[in-house]
Amino acid sequence: MPNEPPAMSLKAIGVVSNDIKQPIRHGWRDIVSEITINSELTEALDGLDEFSHIIVLYWMHQLTKGRQLPLKVHPMGNQDLPLTGRFATRSPSRPNPVGQATVELLGRRGNILKVKGLDAIDGTPVIDIKPYIPGYDSATDAKVPKWMPRH
Amino acid sequence: MPNEPPAMSLKAIGVVSNDIKQPIRHGWRDIVSEITINSELTEALDGLDEFSHIIVLYWMHQLTKGRQLPLKVHPMGNQDLPLTGRFATRSPSRPNPVGQATVELLGRRGNILKVKGLDAIDGTPVIDIKPYIPGYDSATDAKVPKWMPRH
Repeated sequence: MPNEPPAMSLKAIGVVSNDIKQPIRHGWRDIVSEITINSELTEALDGLDEFSHIIVLYWMHQLTKGRQLPLKVHPMGNQDLPLTGRFATRSPSRPNPVGQATVELLGRRGNILKVKGLDAIDGTPVIDIKPYIPGYDSATDAKVPKWMPRH
Repeated sequence: MPNEPPAMSLKAIGVVSNDIKQPIRHGWRDIVSEITINSELTEALDGLDEFSHIIVLYWMHQLTKGRQLPLKVHPMGNQDLPLTGRFATRSPSRPNPVGQATVELLGRRGNILKVKGLDAIDGTPVIDIKPYIPGYDSATDAKVPKWMPRH
């Protein structure tokens, strides 16, 4: 273990713009968003549009109001599903409210990325952009619980 | 855009243990690591072992020494590859040094997860654990640049 805990603070590298002003549970798949990257980082996007998909890490800023989180939760808020440890769900309320989404990159224009399927509301701070690399990011024959839809 | 930037600070939820004491570039695929989650969060892992793969977000703590990062880089340190924007690579040196790896979950014992393929050195702080959900996390027919190996 490290002798002293490192300071771990994030800075926004950009922000999400779309038509979704309040969190929704479903229906993100066809949402088109723009991600405006801070202009001084524009050049760090060069080459990204050779990838069809990217991974977006973002800060779920509306969920950081400091409320105490139960350790278990009904997945997707569905009381019919078994109480499950929070880390075994994709609940947006987590000790560190970092969201991670694999999205289709529709295009890039300067410091603006156009993406499809990002489940983040308008105004969400973005903390990283990574290229999606199938051999690294996808798992073959991945197993999920019976209660979980695969798609 | 938000009127005032939110404070975005992370707390470690656990730590990585393995035999890798210094960063290496390749050869992570078969590395077995243990992730020890803070004991007060143990219950938040319940149900995780119904998934075969998990996503680990971690803080690349050895890379936070404040050096100025060039915006472009030769991928994988290979001078034969084209200079590429940092966000179009998986270089561990990024504005926010958050790593993200899809790994095989070999087992869970209490607050300890045993995983295979995690590319994080011994002592790395872990900031989130998420279940890997194929329909959400994998992209079909993903396109990558010609210089990038798919595996």
